[in-house]
Amino acid sequence: MELWFTERQTPGVALSFQVIRTIHRERTRYQDLAVLETRDNGKVLVLDGCVMTTDLDEFVYHEMIAHVPLCTHPCPRRVLVIGGGDGGTVREVLKHDSVEAAVLAEIDGGVIEASRQHLPNLSRSLDDPRCHVMVGDGAEHVSSRPGEYDVILCDSTDPVGPGAVLFSGGFYRASHQSLTGDGVFCAQMESPFFHGELIGRVVRDLRRVFPVVRLYLAVVPTYPGALWSFVLASKKADPVRDARTVRLNTRYYTPEVHRAAFVLPKFVEELVRPESP
Amino acid sequence: MELWFTERQTPGVALSFQVIRTIHRERTRYQDLAVLETRDNGKVLVLDGCVMTTDLDEFVYHEMIAHVPLCTHPCPRRVLVIGGGDGGTVREVLKHDSVEAAVLAEIDGGVIEASRQHLPNLSRSLDDPRCHVMVGDGAEHVSSRPGEYDVILCDSTDPVGPGAVLFSGGFYRASHQSLTGDGVFCAQMESPFFHGELIGRVVRDLRRVFPVVRLYLAVVPTYPGALWSFVLASKKADPVRDARTVRLNTRYYTPEVHRAAFVLPKFVEELVRPESP
Repeated sequence: MELWFTERQTPGVALSFQVIRTIHRERTRYQDLAVLETRDNGKVLVLDGCVMTTDLDEFVYHEMIAHVPLCTHPCPRRVLVIGGGDGGTVREVLKHDSVEAAVLAEIDGGVIEASRQHLPNLSRSLDDPRCHVMVGDGAEHVSSRPGEYDVILCDSTDPVGPGAVLFSGGFYRASHQSLTGDGVFCAQMESPFFHGELIGRVVRDLRRVFPVVRLYLAVVPTYPGALWSFVLASKKADPVRDARTVRLNTRYYTPEVHRAAFVLPKFVEELVRPESP
Repeated sequence: MELWFTERQTPGVALSFQVIRTIHRERTRYQDLAVLETRDNGKVLVLDGCVMTTDLDEFVYHEMIAHVPLCTHPCPRRVLVIGGGDGGTVREVLKHDSVEAAVLAEIDGGVIEASRQHLPNLSRSLDDPRCHVMVGDGAEHVSSRPGEYDVILCDSTDPVGPGAVLFSGGFYRASHQSLTGDGVFCAQMESPFFHGELIGRVVRDLRRVFPVVRLYLAVVPTYPGALWSFVLASKKADPVRDARTVRLNTRYYTPEVHRAAFVLPKFVEELVRPESP
């Protein structure tokens, strides 16, 4: 017998993985959660039927959401990760020696627990003494912490369900207030192949709040569209001109990849081009 | 009723498209050929069950296999395309004003015919007076044409079946002989996520024949692994240092994308790093 898990990435495109066994399945307070052991992608975390992370390519996403903004900030000490309950982003954040505190604000404690139990490769850093795990609403948290963080990473789910508020102008203004004077904000932003309109809107919204807003790209084969975008918004530093060269133990990120990630294919560049006056 | 086409990309990973109708299906002399009209990816050309090209992302592949080598050569006049019977690569080659002749050597006339009839967006340039269509064995052709071409583009299927010879050392030596003094060779080379070993071997084989050999990347969401590699081998020009800035009517390629495509993620860089002496 062959068992297959299928994600309907769009109404007409589906990606499937052959499943060896279901390691864990539960209905958390917020969503349907599954940890699958697959034939070719190792362990796969699935939330509400969408692939969140697989052993094969999780390093791309987690390295790129963390190291690009952290190497843009001149000296990141306090970092907030919103979402990202699996721990993969915190794992990368803690590779930076300057980081004194990595606060994880994940709304769904079930994700953290499942990752602690079944995805140690992602969750191991959650036990680091510099990591502070907070089960709660990340958007509320930033609203109540002015001038608290050097870097805010929004490692959200898609802009539906509990993650929708993290794609709003109000959240971007609160994040700006919660950042220190050199603060850097970064959020995962879906694929230009399928969500060009969303990307354009978010970049415009962020430009009303931050002086420096730039999109960058990485390739995550198991995400819909595979070409994945992140938006970086900064109070001062430019992510290309001012990036620090930090040698890190990585598999995807290098200082050269950092710069190249901001070079956008023409159809993506057109999505984020500032309107002419 | 929903109709779905599924490609088993690896034994444990499958990509599926919802199909509106089968436009064309035949058993050619060499392979099983289908043209499908899909819900979200437009028309899809399928050979032996593998997706060759879809309306959604064909521009990425065809622009990147053509413009990177053509902008590396100082003045490409005669260009050979091996495989690529759909015509998409020739379409991009003919965007260069310097090109006087684009020879298409496709072993399977059925692909050319099907594309002419059903994929005009790809095949329209096959009727350009500068295009010379030749149904035959591209590897044999290069062996009998010393010093004939400025650029050879190997737009092959995967390294199984009729395309296997195009991944051999003998073919690379014959291509070298078939090139002029400034000649540039380029071949599509599968994904580093699934075919790292093949990529490493081909790069080593080409380094025995050409003085300049470099890998570059583009993102083709409907190909297995999505992160797609191309190998460029050159007799003189370096594809980054010597690239000409040519403004072309494109959707993916720009002169900046050209340079950034050679910046490799660390795990890919490690596949092609020359061995220490």
